[in-house]
Amino acid sequence: MMEFLTGVKQKETVGIQEILEGDYKGKCVKINGAVHNIRDMGDVAFLILRKADGLVQCVYEEGKTDFNIKELKEESAIEASGVVAMEERAPFGFEIRLKSVRVLSKPDEVLPIAVNKYKMHTSLEARLAMRPVSLRNVRERAKFRIQEGLVRGFRDFLHSQGFTEIHTPKIVARGAEGGSNVFRLDYFNKKAELGQSPQFYKQTMVGVYDRVFEVAPVFRAEKHNTTRHLNEYIGLDFEMGYIDGFEDVMAMETGFLQYTMELLEREYHKELKMLDVSLPAVDKIPSVRFDKAKELVSEKYNRKIKNPYDLEPEEELLIGRYFKEEYDRDFVFVTHYPAKKRPFYAMEDPADPRFTLSFDLLFKGLEVTTGGQRIHDYQEILAKMEKRHMEPEDIASYLMIFKYGMPPHGGLGIGLERLTMRLLDEQNVRETSLFPRDVTRLEP
Amino acid sequence: MMEFLTGVKQKETVGIQEILEGDYKGKCVKINGAVHNIRDMGDVAFLILRKADGLVQCVYEEGKTDFNIKELKEESAIEASGVVAMEERAPFGFEIRLKSVRVLSKPDEVLPIAVNKYKMHTSLEARLAMRPVSLRNVRERAKFRIQEGLVRGFRDFLHSQGFTEIHTPKIVARGAEGGSNVFRLDYFNKKAELGQSPQFYKQTMVGVYDRVFEVAPVFRAEKHNTTRHLNEYIGLDFEMGYIDGFEDVMAMETGFLQYTMELLEREYHKELKMLDVSLPAVDKIPSVRFDKAKELVSEKYNRKIKNPYDLEPEEELLIGRYFKEEYDRDFVFVTHYPAKKRPFYAMEDPADPRFTLSFDLLFKGLEVTTGGQRIHDYQEILAKMEKRHMEPEDIASYLMIFKYGMPPHGGLGIGLERLTMRLLDEQNVRETSLFPRDVTRLEP
Repeated sequence: MMEFLTGVKQKETVGIQEILEGDYKGKCVKINGAVHNIRDMGDVAFLILRKADGLVQCVYEEGKTDFNIKELKEESAIEASGVVAMEERAPFGFEIRLKSVRVLSKPDEVLPIAVNKYKMHTSLEARLAMRPVSLRNVRERAKFRIQEGLVRGFRDFLHSQGFTEIHTPKIVARGAEGGSNVFRLDYFNKKAELGQSPQFYKQTMVGVYDRVFEVAPVFRAEKHNTTRHLNEYIGLDFEMGYIDGFEDVMAMETGFLQYTMELLEREYHKELKMLDVSLPAVDKIPSVRFDKAKELVSEKYNRKIKNPYDLEPEEELLIGRYFKEEYDRDFVFVTHYPAKKRPFYAMEDPADPRFTLSFDLLFKGLEVTTGGQRIHDYQEILAKMEKRHMEPEDIASYLMIFKYGMPPHGGLGIGLERLTMRLLDEQNVRETSLFPRDVTRLEP
Repeated sequence: MMEFLTGVKQKETVGIQEILEGDYKGKCVKINGAVHNIRDMGDVAFLILRKADGLVQCVYEEGKTDFNIKELKEESAIEASGVVAMEERAPFGFEIRLKSVRVLSKPDEVLPIAVNKYKMHTSLEARLAMRPVSLRNVRERAKFRIQEGLVRGFRDFLHSQGFTEIHTPKIVARGAEGGSNVFRLDYFNKKAELGQSPQFYKQTMVGVYDRVFEVAPVFRAEKHNTTRHLNEYIGLDFEMGYIDGFEDVMAMETGFLQYTMELLEREYHKELKMLDVSLPAVDKIPSVRFDKAKELVSEKYNRKIKNPYDLEPEEELLIGRYFKEEYDRDFVFVTHYPAKKRPFYAMEDPADPRFTLSFDLLFKGLEVTTGGQRIHDYQEILAKMEKRHMEPEDIASYLMIFKYGMPPHGGLGIGLERLTMRLLDEQNVRETSLFPRDVTRLEP
């Protein structure tokens, strides 16, 4: 008398892909979705069904169906029955000639914004305020399908390269990389903060698995409200041991980008086309030293170098422009950042310790990655901490890994929303975060 | 003169898999790794190299190598050169007869715990305190490879079923599901908390993509220190639209388990064998009503039902035992939980509104999943909130999705560490979290 679950239930309804691949012409099918749009032309009406992978045109002819189109509301969820017919002008080259409709759910009110228009023409502010429903717009949701592709590419590629996926805690003890831009919280009467990066943990895990990666939220309490900062974002992090230099890390990132652009081209073509995205060339990515990049830009664009140890956002933009104009490249690695601007664990360049064996990756003039080789020697990291007046006791469990031996290693962190933003040529990083967190925005 | 990165750098060193698959017998190779163990027998010494995917036996014979084994320390990172020879007694059936060793890094101190023993025989407390290095033990790290496999299985299976991966914020506005067990923080002078689950967001995204999933940290400020609770854990969450009932959700979870057990068998066989894990049968998973389960257990084990609306941990254990003894099953779905014990968004059973269309999945008597069908009608959810004295304004952006129309939907959340714990027959959930967070533990 006991009931058993034996696996995924076969549905009676069909999907778009099934219709495209199967022999459904002239056959009656059941298909479900949300009523995206109704164009009522009197005797005939077009009912556009919104499904996860696209829109399906359904045709209503009075007298041929057992329901009244006037009673159907947009954003109702329905199960439609009808006959598949070829129709060149319909989204996937077919339409459903409706026989009947079963209403699964109804909205309470009419949408206040034109979610069912191809382009919404609504301000970012308004779209964000209505995000839970504005994401139903086909172009809005296409962005996050492409974002999914970037994450899949990151994981699948690294897996193929012998990396192990890890999950590290986001509530961490106070005092580590610290500084002013951390969110603090009380953890059972202990002082805690939200992780600004999985840096210490991923380095730790290099001692365990040699190569590791993590995809997880990162928290930064930065107070400036810009078009490129979020206070919570998704970090694509990896860390690899047994490197010969930080160039190995850049090479691995190049491999990730190559793999991922191919994946997008192959599996996210529809979304790329919808958003009119041209994928950047990643067969070879130029690499330029930090000081050299400043010089090149200063010369070409006749711009004075104000601070030799810092890159201003405008300089990053100009570096991007330079490599676009001179080499037709959207990506450029900038290497050997000044030690002053890098965290204590960054390895200094033995040839000139004012600089580090580190890099940023700029994408159309915006930093989307920070990485480099890390110090692996215990005495060296202690000396570096002393120079920076840091207390070893504060991060004893991190230092433990060096004390007991760590291979040479390096890694990087990519900001997922920024990478998506540049890929889609968006002007504000909030466009590419499902539910962005900024200084004024805690909802939705 | 510009340098370019063109993709992953080819390494001179070989990996274990390469040696196993290639024609390396009698050939000289370079291989890197950590010195896991040195057994010095005088003229001959065995040097065990630890790599991500296993241990490699290297043989040192005095006079045949250009270095002194006495100078090598355990936990040094090295690059060894030597000749591959077949050797049945070595871990993968081969060993490396050393010619030379290049030391890449050295530890500062000797490990205080026997990481290089097959079984550590060290208390959980001691292992957790030393977690950054105790994870280097081959059996410790095998657990988290299997955990990786569970996550891969979850994602790959759901992707194949048309689910889209999403990333939702972990810093959320105060007031939602709330209660006492939330971590609170100040978010730019606004009251915020850490997400207890992605519930509202994943439901929201069903309106966008029909089927979605997320793998992300979940935070619970529960004050009890038990063997099955963590204050931060990884939630495997999915939510699916257009369901006919909550049975569709259970069927999907069954499919996930079937897919994943096969994946583990195929790709994580080495780790399963090392930890002596037998995979549970998942071809069919029994399902029993909550009230019926209480009855069965009460009858068979002669136990009084104290509270008909709650399952005590001991009762869960007995339900697990019952289905093991009667049906030889490790998993059992318990359905129709009392409405009182479920959140406001749970759909009540129209046949008896004291119960909900919901379920837990027990694995060897431990709850590893909670799921069910959700209310999708705007008026219905408002009425339910009123009954529970909740304020609609507090969660206006969540309620927005129902106001403007949502399909029938349901979903579930799986606790990754608990699932891993039961699979590996561990007795404490801290064993299966890389860096566990509990009431007293904020480090490492």
